[in-house]
Amino acid sequence: MQSNDQQAYDRGVTVFSPDGRLYQVEYAREAVERGSPAVGVATDHAVVFAAHVSPRSPLMEPDSIEKVHDLNGRLGVATAGHVADARRLVDFGRQFAQRERLRYGEAPGVEPLSKAVADRIQEFTQTGGTRPFGAALLVGGVPEAIPAVEGGADPDPRLYEIDPSGTPTEWRATAVGRGSDAVRDHLEAEYSTGLDTGAGVSLALTALAESTGESPTAEEIDVAVLDGDGFDALDRDRRATALADAGLDAAS
Amino acid sequence: MQSNDQQAYDRGVTVFSPDGRLYQVEYAREAVERGSPAVGVATDHAVVFAAHVSPRSPLMEPDSIEKVHDLNGRLGVATAGHVADARRLVDFGRQFAQRERLRYGEAPGVEPLSKAVADRIQEFTQTGGTRPFGAALLVGGVPEAIPAVEGGADPDPRLYEIDPSGTPTEWRATAVGRGSDAVRDHLEAEYSTGLDTGAGVSLALTALAESTGESPTAEEIDVAVLDGDGFDALDRDRRATALADAGLDAAS
Amino acid sequence: MQSNDQQAYDRGVTVFSPDGRLYQVEYAREAVERGSPAVGVATDHAVVFAAHVSPRSPLMEPDSIEKVHDLNGRLGVATAGHVADARRLVDFGRQFAQRERLRYGEAPGVEPLSKAVADRIQEFTQTGGTRPFGAALLVGGVPEAIPAVEGGADPDPRLYEIDPSGTPTEWRATAVGRGSDAVRDHLEAEYSTGLDTGAGVSLALTALAESTGESPTAEEIDVAVLDGDGFDALDRDRRATALADAGLDAAS
Amino acid sequence: MQSNDQQAYDRGVTVFSPDGRLYQVEYAREAVERGSPAVGVATDHAVVFAAHVSPRSPLMEPDSIEKVHDLNGRLGVATAGHVADARRLVDFGRQFAQRERLRYGEAPGVEPLSKAVADRIQEFTQTGGTRPFGAALLVGGVPEAIPAVEGGADPDPRLYEIDPSGTPTEWRATAVGRGSDAVRDHLEAEYSTGLDTGAGVSLALTALAESTGESPTAEEIDVAVLDGDGFDALDRDRRATALADAGLDAAS
Amino acid sequence: MQSNDQQAYDRGVTVFSPDGRLYQVEYAREAVERGSPAVGVATDHAVVFAAHVSPRSPLMEPDSIEKVHDLNGRLGVATAGHVADARRLVDFGRQFAQRERLRYGEAPGVEPLSKAVADRIQEFTQTGGTRPFGAALLVGGVPEAIPAVEGGADPDPRLYEIDPSGTPTEWRATAVGRGSDAVRDHLEAEYSTGLDTGAGVSLALTALAESTGESPTAEEIDVAVLDGDGFDALDRDRRATALADAGLDAAS
Amino acid sequence: MQSNDQQAYDRGVTVFSPDGRLYQVEYAREAVERGSPAVGVATDHAVVFAAHVSPRSPLMEPDSIEKVHDLNGRLGVATAGHVADARRLVDFGRQFAQRERLRYGEAPGVEPLSKAVADRIQEFTQTGGTRPFGAALLVGGVPEAIPAVEGGADPDPRLYEIDPSGTPTEWRATAVGRGSDAVRDHLEAEYSTGLDTGAGVSLALTALAESTGESPTAEEIDVAVLDGDGFDALDRDRRATALADAGLDAAS
Amino acid sequence: MQSNDQQAYDRGVTVFSPDGRLYQVEYAREAVERGSPAVGVATDHAVVFAAHVSPRSPLMEPDSIEKVHDLNGRLGVATAGHVADARRLVDFGRQFAQRERLRYGEAPGVEPLSKAVADRIQEFTQTGGTRPFGAALLVGGVPEAIPAVEGGADPDPRLYEIDPSGTPTEWRATAVGRGSDAVRDHLEAEYSTGLDTGAGVSLALTALAESTGESPTAEEIDVAVLDGDGFDALDRDRRATALADAGLDAAS
Repeated sequence: MQSNDQQAYDRGVTVFSPDGRLYQVEYAREAVERGSPAVGVATDHAVVFAAHVSPRSPLMEPDSIEKVHDLNGRLGVATAGHVADARRLVDFGRQFAQRERLRYGEAPGVEPLSKAVADRIQEFTQTGGTRPFGAALLVGGVPEAIPAVEGGADPDPRLYEIDPSGTPTEWRATAVGRGSDAVRDHLEAEYSTGLDTGAGVSLALTALAESTGESPTAEEIDVAVLDGDGFDALDRDRRATALADAGLDAAS
Repeated sequence: MQSNDQQAYDRGVTVFSPDGRLYQVEYAREAVERGSPAVGVATDHAVVFAAHVSPRSPLMEPDSIEKVHDLNGRLGVATAGHVADARRLVDFGRQFAQRERLRYGEAPGVEPLSKAVADRIQEFTQTGGTRPFGAALLVGGVPEAIPAVEGGADPDPRLYEIDPSGTPTEWRATAVGRGSDAVRDHLEAEYSTGLDTGAGVSLALTALAESTGESPTAEEIDVAVLDGDGFDALDRDRRATALADAGLDAAS
Repeated sequence: MQSNDQQAYDRGVTVFSPDGRLYQVEYAREAVERGSPAVGVATDHAVVFAAHVSPRSPLMEPDSIEKVHDLNGRLGVATAGHVADARRLVDFGRQFAQRERLRYGEAPGVEPLSKAVADRIQEFTQTGGTRPFGAALLVGGVPEAIPAVEGGADPDPRLYEIDPSGTPTEWRATAVGRGSDAVRDHLEAEYSTGLDTGAGVSLALTALAESTGESPTAEEIDVAVLDGDGFDALDRDRRATALADAGLDAAS
Repeated sequence: MQSNDQQAYDRGVTVFSPDGRLYQVEYAREAVERGSPAVGVATDHAVVFAAHVSPRSPLMEPDSIEKVHDLNGRLGVATAGHVADARRLVDFGRQFAQRERLRYGEAPGVEPLSKAVADRIQEFTQTGGTRPFGAALLVGGVPEAIPAVEGGADPDPRLYEIDPSGTPTEWRATAVGRGSDAVRDHLEAEYSTGLDTGAGVSLALTALAESTGESPTAEEIDVAVLDGDGFDALDRDRRATALADAGLDAAS
Repeated sequence: MQSNDQQAYDRGVTVFSPDGRLYQVEYAREAVERGSPAVGVATDHAVVFAAHVSPRSPLMEPDSIEKVHDLNGRLGVATAGHVADARRLVDFGRQFAQRERLRYGEAPGVEPLSKAVADRIQEFTQTGGTRPFGAALLVGGVPEAIPAVEGGADPDPRLYEIDPSGTPTEWRATAVGRGSDAVRDHLEAEYSTGLDTGAGVSLALTALAESTGESPTAEEIDVAVLDGDGFDALDRDRRATALADAGLDAAS
Repeated sequence: MQSNDQQAYDRGVTVFSPDGRLYQVEYAREAVERGSPAVGVATDHAVVFAAHVSPRSPLMEPDSIEKVHDLNGRLGVATAGHVADARRLVDFGRQFAQRERLRYGEAPGVEPLSKAVADRIQEFTQTGGTRPFGAALLVGGVPEAIPAVEGGADPDPRLYEIDPSGTPTEWRATAVGRGSDAVRDHLEAEYSTGLDTGAGVSLALTALAESTGESPTAEEIDVAVLDGDGFDALDRDRRATALADAGLDAAS
Repeated sequence: MQSNDQQAYDRGVTVFSPDGRLYQVEYAREAVERGSPAVGVATDHAVVFAAHVSPRSPLMEPDSIEKVHDLNGRLGVATAGHVADARRLVDFGRQFAQRERLRYGEAPGVEPLSKAVADRIQEFTQTGGTRPFGAALLVGGVPEAIPAVEGGADPDPRLYEIDPSGTPTEWRATAVGRGSDAVRDHLEAEYSTGLDTGAGVSLALTALAESTGESPTAEEIDVAVLDGDGFDALDRDRRATALADAGLDAAS
């Protein structure tokens, strides 16, 4: 399926092919495509994360399949791909946020954090002797509301995607992982500015359903809303309600 | 049996295959599957560990075939796979627990400890020049009962599995090692919430028997109960009694 | 397409071929040629940067596809090639500028900064165990106007290109990335000394249009003007106006 | 004799084969099997070591073929396999014992020492750039008798085996090196609890004779008894007497 | 074209071939031969440098194609070969000169500087994991005139060549880069002692013209004169005059 | 001559073959077998060293072909194999002896010194990135006579051999290098306890003659006697006398 | 020309071949054999060095082709082989001499210096990741005359050769480089003790002429005499006279 020429360049992580490609980074993207999908939607006042979780057994604690992570109460991350790799990046992000807070008195915003994580990912694509991280991240942030400025503009929810090459890009809504192209098509068709949080959750869930072509159950998903009040992971009941609100209950 | 394409990617630990797989991690999983099985069951008040030990000779001290380990009196670990690798991870866990206690005045709970061990395992799958650990761990913990809060909720027994990729997942009951699929099927069929400790031990033992299809003797197993009073390894007599209680005595 | 002899030398980054070539550096140049183009034009009082951005989706924040970067208010960088690699080099440049300012009380000029970045790039072509950076940079600088010297000569806008071998060269106008040969032909034909800033913007945009053979939309480009007053990134409206001024509006 | 598949995985020390095996560790076990055998027997009050030594020449000082080593007067080690490797491990053990004594005021027991040596062996099977140690060890220890507690239980002689994977296991009696399976069969058949030291020496010697199928001479063996009074290496005359006591004199 | 035997030895920089050759160093010499030529001529009172520069475009600042470099006002360097490599060596020379000045109160002469640069080049041909530098250097120096010693001998202009093996040699006049054999033939035929500086410039320019067989334009060359008054780079007008003086104007 | 299987394992110094062998160490033994032989004989009061030296030319200073070395006046070393490697080990031994003397007030005996050298040799057979030492050593020592204890037992001359695996063994008499098997056969046949020093020298010389089958000349040998009075290298005349005393003069 | 078996072992510097050879060291000897020859002769009161230099051009300063080096006024070195490698070793020798002088108040003699250089060379044949030095050295020394001891024995001129394996040997007269076998034959035939310095120079020059079979010119040789008064490099006129004295003028 692959040519001899390709084989010659895809085994060493730090080597360009004659046409200027980095095959190991492209294979890491494949690792992400093999992982269960995650969706992020930036609404007017919040960033909504929704992700597929596929518990191997009813005896597994579904909460332990970490797909959506609370970084520091103000920043959230959803991941796709190699689970252990994603955890390392989430940990790196947590430590970065904590270190910045200690150093500067306040936690970093979504942009500096995304860039710090992206830098770390890039390093692993260039420094010899390691493989790239086999994970992609959606990073969301909503700055704390400033009560004193009652009539002022609301803080701006922002959403970044970081891919296995270490490139951060900002989105209004996007997806990573298995079927992400279909999910993104859905998001492009349905997204509009001015979404309230509830509509954002519904959009995230219907988009996620596109990745498999069928409605997930409340057990099969992880959903969190990040707004001016912080990070809020939905429990099973609220997830069931959200699925129903999105028209994704049993009947679908 | 394996294709040429696969061969090209499975020799270097830190390299992705074109379809995004890490073959060395998958082979380390095979190493775990070759090891004798271990079962963990979280009951209402305890975590029960049971593991197969297969002494090479009657002259071997059976206690020296370490399969279930007392980490610090409050945390227990059962292992499957490459024995020397598992010991290193158990040692790492012990040192981590001790260091945390020195630093923060109290030992870490089961979740931070499981994540620290998982992180260490992940590092060995990405940093060049090493192989992954060929071992999987079951980590259990029961927080110390707080006597002052007499009527309060009991502490929550928790059980984590950590696989050779460095992914921690939480379970009510699970197994690692040879025949773990059959063991897990049995656990899924028989597990129910509200188990008392004795029923947990019986379930662990009957599940373990599924891995080989025959009842083990008291010499062939290692059993420990971790509850609010600490880590309690069963001696030979109590193991024999437990086997009988589980209906696994000579007659079976 | 390539001979066996070539294959023998192009896989190791630090090895010369028998005819004295460094193939990995040449492949990194290919990576640059695969990236969307960027143009730089030095006018009498400013350096103009224009770059193609190709958002993957309307949901992507176009501003997050960083192609033209403000280094420190006095220096600007446009990039082509591997995005994550380019970001690392831009970060390196920012840190270098900041460090120099702390050390010497003033930020470095465009020449020392370009040389520092070029040195870093060269190191990665010679030190074992790494690949070259797959990115090319245009670095522009305009020294701060000195108000006291009212009638004195204006500060001199300068523009450097740095290629993947780590060679810095100074230009009046040039381009990097996909179709850069065609862009440079256009610049050579149309550039003249004495350009005012507006004409410089128009020249940059018409040159950029040469790379694809069609007029870009205001969403598809990133434009910035660096003059004695600092770095000024044009917003969407001003970009649309600039395109129209350059005769590149819908009709073209 | 070996398949192509095996060849592909047995050259790199730190790499798993597809079925989860570490071939270099298995080959190190072969190195042990090529070495002259050593036997350890734990009796009621002592650990007995006996080992084959095969002087290349009558001019060689037989004592310099170190097979049974006094670690610190309280711990003994017998080795099989690559002699230079074994010496390094014995040295490591001596240094560990000394360091612990300096740090804690008393020398380590047989279990912590065995585990420290085992950990070191395991490291060499996982860290890149080295081969495993080609040696196996028998480690014995008898805690110092506590005179004050006249009627108290005697100290407990303990015996560990450490294999080239770095796995420590405790035994009542076992063997390493050439013909160790036959030796162990003999030990299993003849060992009984309640052995006095003399019977232990006889058992060790008859077991050792099983490895070659003929009686050794006093020159061909190394024998030591470790009991509450310390480490006692038998000289040539006492070895001859012990062989006679075991029924292994010329007539056999 | 090359034999299999050669191929076996030319890929590793630090390995001798059976006939005692270092192929990577020889290939680095090829890289130098591919670069535009540079000429150095030591006259009675000066060292003259002349080099071909080939601007890719009229928009490129010709001064930025650095071929002749002022090290510290008293030492000059002309380079041929891989441009980025040459820049690193020039930087190394500058830092060495500065460091020596700080340490000893005066800048190093041409000989110690040439040897320091040569040592650095040699290191890269022997230390593992790197390629040689693909550049050759001409280093010239004229000690500062000592006014007090009016009638004393003038300071002695000296010229060194350093090749990619790291060997420094001293010359009256020589060349490196493309066509250097033809240039050197010309120099040998035309050089005489007692040259004044103007004649030296003419000789350097006519020699340089030999490398391509045609007269260069003032835009295509870089010329500098280093004498007791310091380093003096000729501007475009003076270069045109020099070409005319050398009989290399349009008519030729 | 060698099978494919062997080839697969003998190129990497740190890898076991499937049958548990370390080929590089065995090849280093070959390097020793290629070197001129050296003999050591422990007599009642001395250690005698004799070695073949084969000057390439009558112009070579025979004394500079170091084969028998005085370590510190109390310890002597004879070597065979790769000369430069042997010198490093002798230097290591000298430094070790000096360091120990500084640390403990007295120089080490022959046993600790031999073990220190052996450890260093072993390290080079296991640590990656190096080859083993291609040399074998004979180390002899005679403790200083204690005058006060007039009637006491004389100090005990001791002789160690250290092979390229790093294994030290003690001998009464032995040989290393070319033809060492024949030399050792001779020693075994002729050695007896109670040898005086002169008889020891004769035995060493006749044994050495066995390695080539002909009598050496005084120029072709290096002879030293180490006794309670220190290290004594025989000059040419005394060597000629010793050869005559051993019946190895011209007539033989 | 070479067998497959040889090829398998000659590419890695630190690996023994099955017959105990180090091919890279042997190839480095080839590099020396490719270099122009150097001769050293120890006379009664001096060491004479003579070496071929082959200036590439009459414009090359012949003195810059360093073949005979003054280490510190009391020690001299002549080299053959890879020029840049030889310079590094000469530099190492200079630094060693200087360091020793600072440390001990006097410069080292020829023997310790030769051994220090030899050790450095040996290191590069055993430590991974480097190639051997492709150079051989002749090191000569004459201790300072002690005026006070008028009638005492004159200081002893000594001459060492150090080969690419790092082995130092002492000679009365020897040669390294191209044709060294023929040169050494000549030296053996013509050398006699009691040579005065002039005769030593003549012998060195006639020996050198043997390497090419024709008389060299004064421009083609480098000659130095090291005696009790220090290092004395002969200028062109004295070299011409010396050639004439040796009967090697034009007529030959």
